[in-house]
Parts: sequence; structure tokens; C-alpha cells
Amino acid sequence: MKNMPSHKGYPYLITKSLDPENQESPIHFLPQQYIPSYYFFRRNHFSYPVLGPQSYTLPITGEVINPYTFTYNELFCLDRKTLTVVLECAGNKRSKFDPRVYGEQWEEGAISQGQWQGVSLSTLLSYTGLSKQAKEVVFEGWDVGEKTGTGEVVSYQRSLSLAKALHPDTIIAYAYNGKTIPYKHGFPFRLIVPEWYAMASVKWLKNITVIDHSFEGPFQTDDYVYYPNEGEMKPFPVTTINVNSTIQYPLNYTIIKNGVHRVHGIAWTGKGEITNVQISFDEGNTWQEALIETDPTHRYTWCKWSIDWRVQQEGEYTIQSRAIDSKGRLQPQEPHWNKKGYGYNAVAKIHVKVE
Amino acid sequence: MKNMPSHKGYPYLITKSLDPENQESPIHFLPQQYIPSYYFFRRNHFSYPVLGPQSYTLPITGEVINPYTFTYNELFCLDRKTLTVVLECAGNKRSKFDPRVYGEQWEEGAISQGQWQGVSLSTLLSYTGLSKQAKEVVFEGWDVGEKTGTGEVVSYQRSLSLAKALHPDTIIAYAYNGKTIPYKHGFPFRLIVPEWYAMASVKWLKNITVIDHSFEGPFQTDDYVYYPNEGEMKPFPVTTINVNSTIQYPLNYTIIKNGVHRVHGIAWTGKGEITNVQISFDEGNTWQEALIETDPTHRYTWCKWSIDWRVQQEGEYTIQSRAIDSKGRLQPQEPHWNKKGYGYNAVAKIHVKVE
Repeated sequence: MKNMPSHKGYPYLITKSLDPENQESPIHFLPQQYIPSYYFFRRNHFSYPVLGPQSYTLPITGEVINPYTFTYNELFCLDRKTLTVVLECAGNKRSKFDPRVYGEQWEEGAISQGQWQGVSLSTLLSYTGLSKQAKEVVFEGWDVGEKTGTGEVVSYQRSLSLAKALHPDTIIAYAYNGKTIPYKHGFPFRLIVPEWYAMASVKWLKNITVIDHSFEGPFQTDDYVYYPNEGEMKPFPVTTINVNSTIQYPLNYTIIKNGVHRVHGIAWTGKGEITNVQISFDEGNTWQEALIETDPTHRYTWCKWSIDWRVQQEGEYTIQSRAIDSKGRLQPQEPHWNKKGYGYNAVAKIHVKVE
Repeated sequence: MKNMPSHKGYPYLITKSLDPENQESPIHFLPQQYIPSYYFFRRNHFSYPVLGPQSYTLPITGEVINPYTFTYNELFCLDRKTLTVVLECAGNKRSKFDPRVYGEQWEEGAISQGQWQGVSLSTLLSYTGLSKQAKEVVFEGWDVGEKTGTGEVVSYQRSLSLAKALHPDTIIAYAYNGKTIPYKHGFPFRLIVPEWYAMASVKWLKNITVIDHSFEGPFQTDDYVYYPNEGEMKPFPVTTINVNSTIQYPLNYTIIKNGVHRVHGIAWTGKGEITNVQISFDEGNTWQEALIETDPTHRYTWCKWSIDWRVQQEGEYTIQSRAIDSKGRLQPQEPHWNKKGYGYNAVAKIHVKVE
């Protein structure tokens, strides 16, 4: 027969909600280092925004010396910066908290990475200058809607400290993996903040405002705040990505044959780089070093790791992975539970049966 | 802007494995009564088969008076039978068993339905006749591979008793929703056995053999057998679909606003028809009748049900659904645990937070 279809399947995004659209990457089935845009996780608070001619310009106002509205072409002509960055939703793995936490029930796929290209925000701010009162930079997206909980109609806004905003790797991106950013991922301009959870990387940038005080929008002071158990700690904002790892193969509760299996996954951190990934096949009694495969010069990316597991004995096994970063951070055995379910990074654990 | 993309998303299949391909339907996001073939769940034991010219013919041999090989055209010219049938994988909802069961971790989407068209197997058997020794009818698919557990290379084969095989609604289908059956769903010929779990509805039919004894292939006597807890009952084969229901909206562990919500879902059974669907919003203390929306003359289909829930008080709620069929079967409060995880049909239960 001509044109015989493939003998295997292709993975798809995993739907959590459709309006707003929230779908996760089929992370266990993606071998790529640069995730194609159609497999990039989609996380929205609102319906997709309606864009117009103004969406192609980017005004910078507020506590600046020369307010200025950059055009798409102007941005495109400034010095380009290309960065491969992992973006992880702060709620990734939320479904694993025990007690369970309400909200989007992300499993392990609210994470993707690829190559973003754009211009450093610091370059733009060097054109506008900053007034002496400048304290934070606020980024507003074109997406607007009713906020769950309060019912208020708001746009999506987030701020950065001046220091973070001026970091040369905080960029206004206009391309992903060498192409115009797809509409669903923030076309035409998306802020990219490496090392932070992805709520900071505001999509569909509408304007940038420098302010002289602390920004207190609902996505800064209500959502994206860790509320630990009462009596433990005060609430504190979600910022840097925790050290973390995910086992891509085998899948949880699957049956595999005895023999040799190359167990593999990814590991990532928002501080420094991954230095070790340790794997346990015996309920955590012993840990072995996995081989880290990725070029460590890719500062903001995940590492791929793998380890050969020779299993002769039939039975049920637990496989665990834990990553360590160059700042000495280690995945904890138990997650840091918090009311809104952010930053889950307990040791990854799966169960398999060997037949 | 011209050609603005949709402001919301589209659901996709949910990947469980790629080779063999196992993907479930995004059942919570499908309002259709006839599921389009691209949203139909895919369940395979092996890689997709290679088809050839012989795949367009269907030999019936064994304990028959006149062995005969039907051609595609001959089948197409015989009396047509059109049936809307729900097909449910016997492992649907396996991931809900506690203790957990190994195997494909199906959630609630290993179920789909649509309109199958073909010819009654009894029509074909009236041409070949049956010898007096005839006891069972064996159906072999073109799919072949190594069986998990034993490592033996086998084809997919299942049998039916003569009574079930001769039921006028047991059909050899060649069309789904008015079009040729898609390759991934059994093209060119698929057996359709209404009321039974879908392991019986053999895809890519290669041949039909009438035998004078009980068939003992591995998908008949090893897989698709209920192995209850030791001391409870003897193992027994998986056949008829259990009475069951699924809540499509809201989704488990989501946050919803207070006000009126139309809670909805589906209910189905392999015996008789669904007569009632009861919903509880108070931990099972009280149950209310849901409205059943579907034409009850569709014998082999699921019912859509819905109920308006007026919730004023913020807090956490449990929503449960239980279906009852015309044979008096009611979904049990606890599932019937069995080693291979078949036939899960405990009361459906979700948790939501109202803000």
C-alpha cells in the first residue's frame, strides 16, 4: 500500500481548560531540546487578546527621562540577543501536592524550552533613561478578563525590580525558535525573564511603565504568592525556579520487561546550573549518579539525564530522581506545601512493575 | 487583524504511549454525541499492522459448511446495518483503583462512541452455514507483536460464543460516522460487539474461524480476565460493560465561582438502558435526579445528563454521580478491585472549591 501511515502515534498537548486555554506539554514524549511551538505549554488567565495596530508598538512611560514608543521595526533593528530558556509555570506539578490544592491541575508538563530572540530591556531603557525615583518596572499584557476570586476585570500585569529589569538577559522577545512568536505564546512581543517562573514572562506586551513604588496588582500580591501552612512562615512572592527534575521514562505505574532500561528525564534550576542528578531504585536507600547529557554552557536550560538500569528480578520498583544545583540546592524529599500550590519540587518518584 | 485565531483552544487526545499507540479521548471537552474519529480513543496492544491486498478480503473457515472468503465489494453489497455504539476500553478509569494497578493508566477517556455501519456477522454465517460441532467464533486481527509478560509473538485474537456471534447487532463494520473506518481504528473491517467492553471489537479483521472448543488465546484467558482479591472469587472473563457515569463538568480540583452551574456528564451501561442518574453535592447524604437528555431509543449509546447546581456558599464541595440501569444495576460506592484493573465503575466523584 502507498502512503502507509506511521506505525506509531504522535503526542499531543494535554488539555486542562479551553477558555482560558490551559494545556500542558506531553513532556514524557518529547526528546527535543528546543520544544516546537505547537508542543509548548499554554497557560492563560484570560481568553486570548484581540490585537490591533497598536499591538505592534511598545510604549515605555512613567519614571523615565524620555518616554518613548518603540515600533516593531525599531525593536527589530536593535542589537539582538538570543537565549535558550526554560519556562516553567509556577503551578507545574500542582496535582502532586498532598493535601491536594485547588486550581489548574498541572501534572509534569507545564514546562517547555526553546530559543527566544529579541532585545535586552536594558537597551530600551538606555534610550529612555530612568528618573531617580524609578523603583520597579511594570509590564502589562493585552490580555484582559475577570479575575477568579475577586470578579474584578483586570489586565495581566507583573512587575520586576530595577535590578532584574536591567539584567542584560531580561529581553523583549519577538522570535521563538527562529520564527515570529506564535500568537498563542505572546506575539508580537513577549517579556522573557530567565530563571524565574513563567508568570514573569508577560505575553502580548502592551506597555512598560517605570514606577516609584512597589507594584501591587492582583497577579503580584494575590496570585503568585506562596502561602505556607499557618504558623510556618509569612507569605512570600513566587520568583526563582526551584531545583527540580522529572522522570520521562518509564511512565508511572507501567509494566516493563526485565532487562536493561535507559531511565531518562530532565533536570533544571533557576539558580546556577545543575551539577548532579541522583537516581534511586531501592526506595531511597542508595542513590547513583545519572549521566548529564547537555552542554552546561546553556545557562538557562534544562539538562537531559539518563542512567542504565539493569533489572533482572521481577517485581514492583520505585524509581526516584533528585537534582542538585551549583548553589547547593537539592530537591527535598517532601514538597513545601502552600495554599495556592506553587513551586512543587519534591524528589520525583514513579512506580513500575517488572515482568 | 484578518484571520484572528480563535480566542479559545481545542482539546487533543491524551497520550499514554506511542508505540503501541494508546491515547485517550479528551472526554471532558467533547460535547458531541458522535465522537469525530480524530477524537476517538486509540488502544493498541501492538504497533499498527502492515496491510496488503489480502486485508481487503475476509475468510470464514473452520466449523462451517461452505468456507468462503468475502471480498470488500461483496461485504459492501450485503444488507447494511447501522448502529450507534459506545466502545469503552475495559481498563477505562484504571488509574482510579486503590491500591493502584499497573498497566496503561487510563483516566476517564478510554471511551468513545459513534455510528458504525457494516453487515451482521449472522448474515455472513448464513452464507457459510455452521457445522454441528460449531461452538465459538474466533476473530483474528492483522496486528501482531510480542505480548507483555510472556514475550511470545502473537496476533490479536478474541472469540465469541455462538449466541453472541449470531446476535444481529454483532456486525462487521466498514464505516464510522459515514466514512471509511480510519486506519487507526481498524480499516478495512472491524468487528463491533455492542454492550461488551471494546477488547471484543477486534480491529483490522484478518479472518474468522469457527471452532468446536473454547478458545484459549492470551487475550482471552490471561488478559481481559478479572482477578479479584485472593479468597474473594475465582477469576472470570471481562465481557459486558458495567453501569457507569463520568462527570464532564466541572473538572476535579478546579475553582469555580458561586452562582448557578450546570453540572453535566455521561452515563452508560452494557445491559438494558440508563434509567436514572443521581447526583450528590453533600458527601452522599442526599441524591437528586439529573435530567437525562438523550433519546432512549439509542440502545447502545451513552446518555448525556445534567443538573443545575445553585451554590451560594463559598467552600469546598464534593460532587458525585451514580447511574442506574433498567436491569437494576447501580454504580457501587467502592470499585471492585481486581489485579489487572478492569471494569472500574465506582460512583464518580470530584472535588471543587467555590470562591
